[in-house]
Amino acid sequence: MIIVLRKDATDAEIEHVVEKIKNAGLAVHVSKGKERTIIGAIGDEEKLASLPFEALPGVEKAMPILKPYKLVSREFRKENTTFNVGGVVIGDNAVRVIAGPCSVEGEELLIETAKSVKAAGATVLRGGAFKPRTSPYDFQGLGLEGLKYLAAAKRATGLPLISELMDPRDVEMMCEHVDIIQIGARNMQNFRLLKEVGMTKKPVLLKRGLSATIKELLMSAEYIAAQGNSTIIFCERGIRTFETATRNTLDISAVPVLKEETHLPVFVDPSHAVGRWDLVAPVAKAAVAVGADGLMIEVHQDPENALCDGAQSLKPGKFAVLMEELKKVAVAVGRTI
Amino acid sequence: MIIVLRKDATDAEIEHVVEKIKNAGLAVHVSKGKERTIIGAIGDEEKLASLPFEALPGVEKAMPILKPYKLVSREFRKENTTFNVGGVVIGDNAVRVIAGPCSVEGEELLIETAKSVKAAGATVLRGGAFKPRTSPYDFQGLGLEGLKYLAAAKRATGLPLISELMDPRDVEMMCEHVDIIQIGARNMQNFRLLKEVGMTKKPVLLKRGLSATIKELLMSAEYIAAQGNSTIIFCERGIRTFETATRNTLDISAVPVLKEETHLPVFVDPSHAVGRWDLVAPVAKAAVAVGADGLMIEVHQDPENALCDGAQSLKPGKFAVLMEELKKVAVAVGRTI
Amino acid sequence: MIIVLRKDATDAEIEHVVEKIKNAGLAVHVSKGKERTIIGAIGDEEKLASLPFEALPGVEKAMPILKPYKLVSREFRKENTTFNVGGVVIGDNAVRVIAGPCSVEGEELLIETAKSVKAAGATVLRGGAFKPRTSPYDFQGLGLEGLKYLAAAKRATGLPLISELMDPRDVEMMCEHVDIIQIGARNMQNFRLLKEVGMTKKPVLLKRGLSATIKELLMSAEYIAAQGNSTIIFCERGIRTFETATRNTLDISAVPVLKEETHLPVFVDPSHAVGRWDLVAPVAKAAVAVGADGLMIEVHQDPENALCDGAQSLKPGKFAVLMEELKKVAVAVGRTI
Amino acid sequence: MIIVLRKDATDAEIEHVVEKIKNAGLAVHVSKGKERTIIGAIGDEEKLASLPFEALPGVEKAMPILKPYKLVSREFRKENTTFNVGGVVIGDNAVRVIAGPCSVEGEELLIETAKSVKAAGATVLRGGAFKPRTSPYDFQGLGLEGLKYLAAAKRATGLPLISELMDPRDVEMMCEHVDIIQIGARNMQNFRLLKEVGMTKKPVLLKRGLSATIKELLMSAEYIAAQGNSTIIFCERGIRTFETATRNTLDISAVPVLKEETHLPVFVDPSHAVGRWDLVAPVAKAAVAVGADGLMIEVHQDPENALCDGAQSLKPGKFAVLMEELKKVAVAVGRTI
Repeated sequence: MIIVLRKDATDAEIEHVVEKIKNAGLAVHVSKGKERTIIGAIGDEEKLASLPFEALPGVEKAMPILKPYKLVSREFRKENTTFNVGGVVIGDNAVRVIAGPCSVEGEELLIETAKSVKAAGATVLRGGAFKPRTSPYDFQGLGLEGLKYLAAAKRATGLPLISELMDPRDVEMMCEHVDIIQIGARNMQNFRLLKEVGMTKKPVLLKRGLSATIKELLMSAEYIAAQGNSTIIFCERGIRTFETATRNTLDISAVPVLKEETHLPVFVDPSHAVGRWDLVAPVAKAAVAVGADGLMIEVHQDPENALCDGAQSLKPGKFAVLMEELKKVAVAVGRTI
Repeated sequence: MIIVLRKDATDAEIEHVVEKIKNAGLAVHVSKGKERTIIGAIGDEEKLASLPFEALPGVEKAMPILKPYKLVSREFRKENTTFNVGGVVIGDNAVRVIAGPCSVEGEELLIETAKSVKAAGATVLRGGAFKPRTSPYDFQGLGLEGLKYLAAAKRATGLPLISELMDPRDVEMMCEHVDIIQIGARNMQNFRLLKEVGMTKKPVLLKRGLSATIKELLMSAEYIAAQGNSTIIFCERGIRTFETATRNTLDISAVPVLKEETHLPVFVDPSHAVGRWDLVAPVAKAAVAVGADGLMIEVHQDPENALCDGAQSLKPGKFAVLMEELKKVAVAVGRTI
Repeated sequence: MIIVLRKDATDAEIEHVVEKIKNAGLAVHVSKGKERTIIGAIGDEEKLASLPFEALPGVEKAMPILKPYKLVSREFRKENTTFNVGGVVIGDNAVRVIAGPCSVEGEELLIETAKSVKAAGATVLRGGAFKPRTSPYDFQGLGLEGLKYLAAAKRATGLPLISELMDPRDVEMMCEHVDIIQIGARNMQNFRLLKEVGMTKKPVLLKRGLSATIKELLMSAEYIAAQGNSTIIFCERGIRTFETATRNTLDISAVPVLKEETHLPVFVDPSHAVGRWDLVAPVAKAAVAVGADGLMIEVHQDPENALCDGAQSLKPGKFAVLMEELKKVAVAVGRTI
Repeated sequence: MIIVLRKDATDAEIEHVVEKIKNAGLAVHVSKGKERTIIGAIGDEEKLASLPFEALPGVEKAMPILKPYKLVSREFRKENTTFNVGGVVIGDNAVRVIAGPCSVEGEELLIETAKSVKAAGATVLRGGAFKPRTSPYDFQGLGLEGLKYLAAAKRATGLPLISELMDPRDVEMMCEHVDIIQIGARNMQNFRLLKEVGMTKKPVLLKRGLSATIKELLMSAEYIAAQGNSTIIFCERGIRTFETATRNTLDISAVPVLKEETHLPVFVDPSHAVGRWDLVAPVAKAAVAVGADGLMIEVHQDPENALCDGAQSLKPGKFAVLMEELKKVAVAVGRTI
């Protein structure tokens, strides 16, 4: 931690800061310059985390030196982490595609969709059983029944499953039925939920919150890892900005930034990012080109009658065409799909 | 709902949209202009909510006419809603001030703070027992023990209590101990939590999410009200923007916008908005001047040693001075504190 | 400047950074900690401004210590700066109100408006002769003719004038006709324009850009001051965020932040911030309560037929009522209007 | 235009709105529903542009139907517009790469850079002679001397030139020396500058403002086109958001949105978007994959000693490697470089 004093800081104020640092058990280095006195705290910065240095008299600003995330950081582990989900390796050179409907609506429809996305090259099936909806009057998901339909689709196709968890009380039920637990954007800082999935052994796909910084996203993953579960997939799905032409603004450069900061795999969800099916294809290609380890794409047999997010869902035919295009882009950047 | 067709929309495409609306049970009015064909859907717009009109061929945009919130809207109830919390009326002409520490740290310290904020004119005591923290390594609150200290402070001062709920499994415990349940900014779209507090009879203070629109804030309150609990207080606490000089950006005009859109009381939390104790006073005065029904202010006996948010906490002496200033501003805008 | 090295930085990389700093003429202090090596550059930080430290091998981040603005900073001058504009003192204890139409539309109408805002207590008349409009097809202002009408209104009422400058070629003409030159939000970083007004002796009202940080706003003022003109008024007028309920989001806490950072007066434009006349009054009161030195409010005799910004303009009657309310708030915070 | 009345709108208020529309010369259609009365204005919407419908009594909202941009819209011209710049066709199937230093610093250095970027496959040379800098104390560019060095580099390599215009007084000088005039992000709504370049016959590269919506970007191009110059290139260069890990946030989906809305070519500037040289390559690949018609990339022989933006500049060697990678991505999406 570096603490910059105000130009007019008194000796007593400087001494007060120094004492605070020493009391926390760190060594201190004071540098009195012409313009500013600067105090360096040397040692375990963690011990200073809750001290409100910027509120102390005479202090202009306090600047942490170290990154607050540890277990998920690239510094902690140099090599890419990979893990196996129902036979599918996540995080290696192959770009993995998760596909399926926004919400599970019926068993037959789901199995049909599962078969078609598998045929096109998807390796994980998505489908929401519990749906976070802005309005209490909108379809909220089929719940346990939806999970059973997902299980049926897995039996029919062999595809491992991902579905969203919204409530700590549902963790056990979810673990029984799915292969990857999704934490949605609105729950990225639902810390109780993060701790619960941290105590399981299930891989977790953690979506970035609508206004979460990359640092906060990493800290939320740290919550999961701190409980002992390091099988985490990051998912960039668009952030909220002033632009309204798309549902969200995909932060495409978050992918290489995350790849540098963490050893864990990084996916992109182009469907939620843009919110319009006709923009999914170009943005998905960009995500592969930028270096994403995987994609999550909404596919629905009949988007016009989808109970949720029909506007951003691809029909199976268009999805199959997109998969062919994505394969070419993957090869162009030295990867496979 | 108004649906605008593309200039080149075919008759078949227009007819397809018309059929969709009719099938949903609404009447249709088609207006063919020189530049665009426009289709009006007449009837219960709710029935069209999940239909992805903008994804239909030939459609340029779909514009809803009605507001999606009902029970919390000013249209539903013209007069201001007021309710009594432990003897304190919320929502009438008196501006109410909630004060206390960010987190409960000890019984004696809390009682001392409670006495001093009461003496200064605060009418509700705040204190976090469960703390949502960005880092898993930061202080997470005292939990049930903290709730017991709060209860002790209530016995000592008579002040009703507010504390934050983070987990649906804690609802019962929370209801036993506090008078107002706080839903924090990070949980504003934790829909399961909203439903749970909606099923209680406790007043709820609902904080605006970091990147939530006013409309989304109203929809989250609608979740609570739809379960039968309409004793809801809105709390503007700053939104996330590009500006980093303050912790968040207080959206001061959200107060009059909310007062127009809803019949429920609107509070402001200047402490979280600015994140620096020296800016709390001017911003608190602005909040009273703009028409807030109440304030929530962090006060700590010894901010330098606070376990949480020390930088934005006022000492009791400064809080007492601020309360005197706030009273003058309240009178200037025709209210009391 | 503090430079933090990556954990794995080599001695050669550290030495390379040290050399860069020495070559720029500054002294160096190297601190090798367990986790990180930190390099402090001691001396005139300005000389390092263009060096891309963060791009050097082995460097994690570079953190400037000093603020980049000088002449406009509170450090440069402790006391508030005041200056006289046509008999009106700006920056003292009295809150000044600039009022008038968005754009000048006709001589008679303008004189009528000038008389009414003067009667209500406004001390400066505003009116746009050159209008920056998003669409090339919208009314672009009357130009020189508009300036002449402004001059007539000044003769009729004695009110000093403010009007917006858009083009460096108009500086002379503008200086002949008005008392304060306004630089609009869209031109806050039109550096050529800033230099031109810096070379005049006219007071300048500098509006914050839609997405300008407070620091950038201060730097733009520094452009003006660096040319020799330090009669600058800052104007917060709302920033662009994700919220669409109001035209912009007024950053109310920018006022106390600016008051701390600079010795120059700080105004607020509630009309552009909210974009709706019915929200102007509460937000104007908040601006006075938070400590603004002045306000700029749009007033039009007949908003329904205004050629520009009718939706956010107050009628003279409503403006007069607001002025009475503002006086009470000013008194409540120890000021006058 | 569709005007939605408040639920409690009176007949007189409805009639008042109807009169306004009729007076503007449009036909009116009134639809009285159970929940709301809706008024449709049929005819030339342009005539209603300055009418503040939302400020009229009884009006809830006014929704325009037509897009405000015409000449630049895809509706105005279905096919992609292409134009020739010094022998290079912009806007066809070939992705064009503009490369060169942020600012022109010396003749020899520039010619050397020009030769290396040409050898790598760039087809236009960039270089700033007039530099918009946040600080008045930073290097402001070499001015006319810089333009002469650019001309020398063109003679040496045959590469057409692009450079930024900041001041309407420099238009003529700029037209003499360069092949494409760049309007920078900070001047995107400098409407006088837009009109000036609109009156020339030079191709214009128009950068998106830091907080400009796509719609505003299109409107700024409309300013240029309305003066008679339709040789316009759009350039997405990152927008300002809350994320600070990168200099700006590249809005990658703006490219397909623009390609749909306009017939003009769309470029991407990855260098300014990310602000770090190590992220330029992945983001440039994403830009090609998403469908950009060209790229603008900063290349400097010696970034550590660049006078401007050294941190985001590639060395010629890295640029040459990137060009090879970009060619593969271009082929993967059916294009060439």
